[in-house]
Amino acid sequence: MSRLRKEIDEALLDFVGRQRPALLDISADLAPLMSALDALLSGGKRLRPSFCYWGWRAAGGGTDPGIVAAAASLELLQASALIHDDVMDSSDTRRGQPSVHRRFEALHRAQGWPGDAQAFGGGTAILLGDLCLAWSSEMFETCGLDDERRRRGRAVYDVMRTEVMCGQYLDMLEGTRGEATVETALRVVEYKAAKYTIERPLHLGAALAGADPRVTAALTGYGLPLGIAFQLRDDVLGVFGDPAETGKPAGDDLREGKRTVLVALTLERASAAQAAALQRRLGDPALDRPGVDELRAIIEETGGLAACEALIDRYAREAREALAAAPITEEAREALTDLATAAVARLA
Amino acid sequence: MSRLRKEIDEALLDFVGRQRPALLDISADLAPLMSALDALLSGGKRLRPSFCYWGWRAAGGGTDPGIVAAAASLELLQASALIHDDVMDSSDTRRGQPSVHRRFEALHRAQGWPGDAQAFGGGTAILLGDLCLAWSSEMFETCGLDDERRRRGRAVYDVMRTEVMCGQYLDMLEGTRGEATVETALRVVEYKAAKYTIERPLHLGAALAGADPRVTAALTGYGLPLGIAFQLRDDVLGVFGDPAETGKPAGDDLREGKRTVLVALTLERASAAQAAALQRRLGDPALDRPGVDELRAIIEETGGLAACEALIDRYAREAREALAAAPITEEAREALTDLATAAVARLA
Repeated sequence: MSRLRKEIDEALLDFVGRQRPALLDISADLAPLMSALDALLSGGKRLRPSFCYWGWRAAGGGTDPGIVAAAASLELLQASALIHDDVMDSSDTRRGQPSVHRRFEALHRAQGWPGDAQAFGGGTAILLGDLCLAWSSEMFETCGLDDERRRRGRAVYDVMRTEVMCGQYLDMLEGTRGEATVETALRVVEYKAAKYTIERPLHLGAALAGADPRVTAALTGYGLPLGIAFQLRDDVLGVFGDPAETGKPAGDDLREGKRTVLVALTLERASAAQAAALQRRLGDPALDRPGVDELRAIIEETGGLAACEALIDRYAREAREALAAAPITEEAREALTDLATAAVARLA
Repeated sequence: MSRLRKEIDEALLDFVGRQRPALLDISADLAPLMSALDALLSGGKRLRPSFCYWGWRAAGGGTDPGIVAAAASLELLQASALIHDDVMDSSDTRRGQPSVHRRFEALHRAQGWPGDAQAFGGGTAILLGDLCLAWSSEMFETCGLDDERRRRGRAVYDVMRTEVMCGQYLDMLEGTRGEATVETALRVVEYKAAKYTIERPLHLGAALAGADPRVTAALTGYGLPLGIAFQLRDDVLGVFGDPAETGKPAGDDLREGKRTVLVALTLERASAAQAAALQRRLGDPALDRPGVDELRAIIEETGGLAACEALIDRYAREAREALAAAPITEEAREALTDLATAAVARLA
């Protein structure tokens, strides 16, 4: 796995390295945009590119630097999503560093510019996210795979982008309406996370390789439940995770008021007093450590956490069973087994 | 010109119409995103698609529905830029209607949802702008022109996207630093407006048609100065324009504190008292009608307005002269003459 990670990183560095002089040629004032992107791209687990690569191999694709570049382009799409997501959530940190909008707020203050630092930070993050989104499609289209492969892959790539953006909207809508049920929260998980993080990257690789429809279907059988399990693990980590491992402050999802499946499972099981306490403090930007501990206790005592862990186990098992029966190469089966373990037990 | 406009609109309606069921299939909750996009796309002059189309014809391209779809994809790129720009500038209106983020703030309030209406509006606008950016490249790639033409066009398309996003950042930077000179303001105009609105759309059409390098160079000779004249006219309208024609409140650019070439020309010519008054009120969100009138008077009395009009005339003349000598078809020369008049004398 680590050789693939190195190849993906090299493809990213190569692409971003070709953009750098073009930007600096427009203006030296653009250098901080490149530094912010470099910092963001230095973190991350490259999950989406890895799934894309193994979708390709699962469908019989061979060794070709083109697939590595096509897969790596998903990391720029993800960078765009993270940068914009952090603006939308007013998040302070990402991957253990200041979020892009906070970074540019700090630059503004350090320079003592007269304008509004917060507006400058937010505006820059919107633009840098746009740039990453544009560069993602540019990197995909110039990956080096031939026109016919890219035409097949593009159909998946286009659907994936629409799905993740719609999923993000539905997620925000559930958060602001404050009435998510387990069912509606799972629908958000499907589009925002499960398809985007696992199923569609697998499909993209498979389509680029010219997969048999049975292979594509088998990858859905594995990828969709695994993607749900992955997001549920993420929800648990967003509440109970160690900041050193998640790169986010403890209980950050509680402070942001995310209406996750974990929260919905808890509310289903909560007493009136527990539900009232959770509803009152969820999304309070001033939630401190004792407040986080109080909400964590409710999520544990109601059995919400145990129910979520049981769902993770169930979806992960479903994924493993689908993988065992999938008509793919043994090498791909082995790599996808390892990726499944990494996605569900992952630390951050 | 109006037949082309009709064809562009049909191509847009056709593309957006194919996305609609895909979105509603994910969730009926996504319908307001489509309505907001429909409303935004109902306005606008289709300048960029028109320049793209005539770049194609200038380079000898014939009648092909593919070029209309490729050209129309620029309108989705522009929709993305407008939606994000309005969030960054906190603009209330666009094309005479509420801006997208205000529209979703209003939806939030009307529904009485418990969350933060402003955050919901801003977040939705970020996501809808992302969707338009993604759809722009999807529409371009699926326009129907062959792989070889699109490969040549894509090189221009990619450069154009990077340039406009960098130009937007530089524009915001000049605004927040508050120290734009005529020279630095013109650099912003070049990347944010002149290349993006006119030169690159012309180049895109020409590249899709397989233009001779002499044609591409001639289109730069026409498009770049015309693009500068176009943006300077926009700056004048942003201060002096009639709201019924611009679709923006009177003096909106003053309220937003834009550091335009017009402002820089005024400051170069202002007395200490005039400069202090302009600097003090520029960017004041509470600037009322008497305040707008006071700043307009300064811009006129210093000779800033006259200097800006003289620049518009000079750049427009340069464009016309380049066009007269360009090695292109007579039909294209005539259409580009009309477009030049529309761009510089345009009402909104």
